[in-house]
Amino acid sequence: MYRTHTCGELSMKNTEQDVVLCGWVQKSRDLGGMTFVDLRDRYGLTQLVFNMDTNIGLCEKARKLGREFVIQVKGKVRERSNKNLKMPTGEIEIDVCELNILNRSEIPPFTIEEDTDGGEELRMKYRYLDLRRNSVKKAIILRHQVAQEVRKYMDSIGFIEVETPVLVNSTPEGARDFVVPSRMQPGTFYALPQSPQTLKQLLMVAGFDKYFQIVKCFRDEDLRADRQPEFSQIDCEMSFVERNDILETFEGLTKCLFKQVRGIEFSEPFIKMPYHEAMEFYGSDKPDLRFGMKFNDLTELVKGHSFAVFDSSEYVCGICAEGCSEYTRKQLDDLTEFVRRPQIGAKGMVYLRYNTDGSLKSSVDKFYTPEELKKWAESANARPGDLILILSGDKKKTLSALSELRLEMGNRLGLRKKDTFVPLWVVDFPLLEWDEEAKRFFAMHHPFTSPNPEDMQLMQTDPGKVRANAYDLVINGVEIGGGSIRIHDAEVQQLMFKVLGFTEEEAVKQFGFLMNAFKFGAPPHGGIAFGFDRLVAMFGGQDSIRDFIAFPKNNSGRDVMLDTPSQISQKQLDELHIKVESKK
Amino acid sequence: MYRTHTCGELSMKNTEQDVVLCGWVQKSRDLGGMTFVDLRDRYGLTQLVFNMDTNIGLCEKARKLGREFVIQVKGKVRERSNKNLKMPTGEIEIDVCELNILNRSEIPPFTIEEDTDGGEELRMKYRYLDLRRNSVKKAIILRHQVAQEVRKYMDSIGFIEVETPVLVNSTPEGARDFVVPSRMQPGTFYALPQSPQTLKQLLMVAGFDKYFQIVKCFRDEDLRADRQPEFSQIDCEMSFVERNDILETFEGLTKCLFKQVRGIEFSEPFIKMPYHEAMEFYGSDKPDLRFGMKFNDLTELVKGHSFAVFDSSEYVCGICAEGCSEYTRKQLDDLTEFVRRPQIGAKGMVYLRYNTDGSLKSSVDKFYTPEELKKWAESANARPGDLILILSGDKKKTLSALSELRLEMGNRLGLRKKDTFVPLWVVDFPLLEWDEEAKRFFAMHHPFTSPNPEDMQLMQTDPGKVRANAYDLVINGVEIGGGSIRIHDAEVQQLMFKVLGFTEEEAVKQFGFLMNAFKFGAPPHGGIAFGFDRLVAMFGGQDSIRDFIAFPKNNSGRDVMLDTPSQISQKQLDELHIKVESKK
Repeated sequence: MYRTHTCGELSMKNTEQDVVLCGWVQKSRDLGGMTFVDLRDRYGLTQLVFNMDTNIGLCEKARKLGREFVIQVKGKVRERSNKNLKMPTGEIEIDVCELNILNRSEIPPFTIEEDTDGGEELRMKYRYLDLRRNSVKKAIILRHQVAQEVRKYMDSIGFIEVETPVLVNSTPEGARDFVVPSRMQPGTFYALPQSPQTLKQLLMVAGFDKYFQIVKCFRDEDLRADRQPEFSQIDCEMSFVERNDILETFEGLTKCLFKQVRGIEFSEPFIKMPYHEAMEFYGSDKPDLRFGMKFNDLTELVKGHSFAVFDSSEYVCGICAEGCSEYTRKQLDDLTEFVRRPQIGAKGMVYLRYNTDGSLKSSVDKFYTPEELKKWAESANARPGDLILILSGDKKKTLSALSELRLEMGNRLGLRKKDTFVPLWVVDFPLLEWDEEAKRFFAMHHPFTSPNPEDMQLMQTDPGKVRANAYDLVINGVEIGGGSIRIHDAEVQQLMFKVLGFTEEEAVKQFGFLMNAFKFGAPPHGGIAFGFDRLVAMFGGQDSIRDFIAFPKNNSGRDVMLDTPSQISQKQLDELHIKVESKK
Repeated sequence: MYRTHTCGELSMKNTEQDVVLCGWVQKSRDLGGMTFVDLRDRYGLTQLVFNMDTNIGLCEKARKLGREFVIQVKGKVRERSNKNLKMPTGEIEIDVCELNILNRSEIPPFTIEEDTDGGEELRMKYRYLDLRRNSVKKAIILRHQVAQEVRKYMDSIGFIEVETPVLVNSTPEGARDFVVPSRMQPGTFYALPQSPQTLKQLLMVAGFDKYFQIVKCFRDEDLRADRQPEFSQIDCEMSFVERNDILETFEGLTKCLFKQVRGIEFSEPFIKMPYHEAMEFYGSDKPDLRFGMKFNDLTELVKGHSFAVFDSSEYVCGICAEGCSEYTRKQLDDLTEFVRRPQIGAKGMVYLRYNTDGSLKSSVDKFYTPEELKKWAESANARPGDLILILSGDKKKTLSALSELRLEMGNRLGLRKKDTFVPLWVVDFPLLEWDEEAKRFFAMHHPFTSPNPEDMQLMQTDPGKVRANAYDLVINGVEIGGGSIRIHDAEVQQLMFKVLGFTEEEAVKQFGFLMNAFKFGAPPHGGIAFGFDRLVAMFGGQDSIRDFIAFPKNNSGRDVMLDTPSQISQKQLDELHIKVESKK
């Protein structure tokens, strides 16, 4: 062993001890008679002292150390005269008597500090240096801690982690698969799993009862910001359960993680909100409930007063921003500009000030009497001092635009607090989505999602109205995970395929091996999957998942450090019996 | 929840309780007035009773249950009149009052029992049924337990599990890579990792200090029996350590696993044996030390007595089989036949009986006096009653053949006990292997393996003699894992490349990104990897790893259940800009 202690553990308890430390030179200050070096390792920083008076040679050697040199020092722990109580080791320093340079370092391309001067691309190319930065290192360690806690908890309640294969079969539905050519069987391919969905259902058929896995999944999609071609999920499945059994189990996991990782305890059950309510009151299937600002449908109230914009709108809806009645013209213009952005898509915004003196002022004053405006304010539960913001138009688009405006107001009013967490189950998703182009229903989740038992009779008569036995966990407006009770009954499954417009032949071709397995005693079962990268980023208080992945890919799916994907040799191509075609 | 209890937990404590159970019909016995059904789930078996006298309808329904039907029953726990104390639930039974068929089952293609009538291929095709069998289920649960213990232990000693990417770069050295065509960058490929070797070394450069991961690795090799194209390993790396620090750490892990998983405690440190000693005394770099039977070099003793076979042999060596002096002619012929098998390759075998009366009898009596034979026996530490078996020829082949004979004798004498475990560190492997065809040295491990510090001067003068700072953990003749201290010094690395005959250009091309990273302060580091599938199989007392993998591939790399690899659509090929070429 090269050391007796790490750079994070020495304190006043250790004074006068002889120690050996190893690490990287964080920085070095030369104060004439003394040279101070901050030595860094995974565990912390420790100050080293070299004294010109007592050992000139050693001190001169220390002065030549460059940033990020790897060194080993021997010395005595001394109490510092100038203590830094913000650092765990800030009360002591090492009076060094021996210095060994274990490895030199070129000058790093960016500073290894919290506020680095390195841009995203440079940091990714030298990710091994970026990972030395405290925030990135802590993000990766947090990921480890969360994974450990997940496994500990799942094990404690009887779940078994089963590794499912990475080389699986390509499934035609869903996103695009990454494929792997087989050398032994030329012309055939494996696929990398988009999720272990079918395999975990097979494990239920196999009687494993409670399965989980922290597992890599793969999707060959054009990457949006903050999507990765390979990502991890906490994947779970249970047998002999109903919806609430699954919600309780994973609410338990979530509460345990909050407690262990963030020290936050939730004493109340998580809110359960039907999908249609989330859409109606927050315009989103993943509402941020850290603040209220519920939608107020004003459609009936505002129509028939010659204001053409409202009269021609399918839907008129407002939110009440508390205490904002004195917003300036500029602030209101800003918000109008915000909702008009192409990605939000509203045509304009109407406001209604409920002044503190009880008077009302709106941008559409000339169409409505003060009494009428008063009714709007009452309908929106506004009080004097509040501001009502109103959007109108096609219902679906208006809900979505107002949802964005609500979040923006939440940001502006500081209502989306970083350290507040409001978890929420969104339940009763629609089972099917009508595709206008294909003129058929598609499964909103996947074709094995069970209809809500109460809606079973609608399957025949009005399938578009059937609710799925599906659920999402949403925290602070972020979808952490989702799942469903699966269909285990052959007749229901056939009905589902019929509604989806599959012929029996097509169903067999696409899902044959699973349907076959279901012939041999499939138990009632259901499951859930949490996005692990996203979950850890949430615990780390970050929006981007990238720093919670040790070696992430960029938005083109490249690992710029490994410089991959890259060309392979002709010999490799020949062995696989494949040929690269030039792009047409 | 469909049940109040599982099928494995009810006992006399629960008598007269009303319970609801779910599970699969294991078997059913119709005894006229009574029908007994064994209900099975992951946790056990519980006997259900249906009584013709009390409920004819229910009993008749029960009589129609087929094997593997999924049912839910309600009833009362009763004490059994006919107790089965071998089963945890064998003292009770359920007097059923309600029976719901949750799902029917076709007759399974093989019996779901310990001694199934299903062959390997059928079992693999219906793996979800095979996994219902107790031994296979237990193997997968054992795997979960071992993984949990590994993670718990590694976490407790400060290791961080870091997920390394699955989509990496193809490396030209080593085994063949599986590759993944990139759609976004046509003509380029990712590769699946053969191991995270370079990535874990980068994590050391990043200062992570102690890394581990239970990780999937991939090798596109022609499969030998019991090899899988995807396999799991416990992968580890540590910084600022010397060889013994790593051995102690992973000896600690191994001991902890033996204790937690098998209840076996090792109070002594594991044996450390240099590679040359393992070869010299056991003819193998992974000797099974559950028994002795060390090799005795007889070369000097036997030469010069006109026995041409020995006189012309480079090497003559014997093992002493205790208490076997009365082996019959037939038994000796059997052994001769064994060593002559093509895969063993010896030309013949000489024996020497040391009879209980002290007399000696050999198959080569006519060339040697009794006194000379006595010297052989003494040299082999034989005592009256023992049998000495001798092979001769080329040294390398003889060592290898005698190693096989030793193991065979160990088997015949019952010395390789299933419940005895003798772990062993094999150390000081050669750094380099001379390739007669290529007329150059190859790295025995990989080109980043550090030479033994004591042999550093030999690198220039006699590289073939240099020992590596590398080690294997061997248990009962099985290689559980191995690793090495890595080179962290740029000059040593250059020397290594020179000895391997790399030009600087070639070295940069193949290992550039790692060499680049090493310029920025690489700490001294080393690591190890354990074969996880093999380790779990060992704890499970099995030679084959297949049942310890939930969904294994067959010897052609096929998953016969998923029916993969398989063809993909022309659209997929087009999007990837690749074309399948017909086999030439």
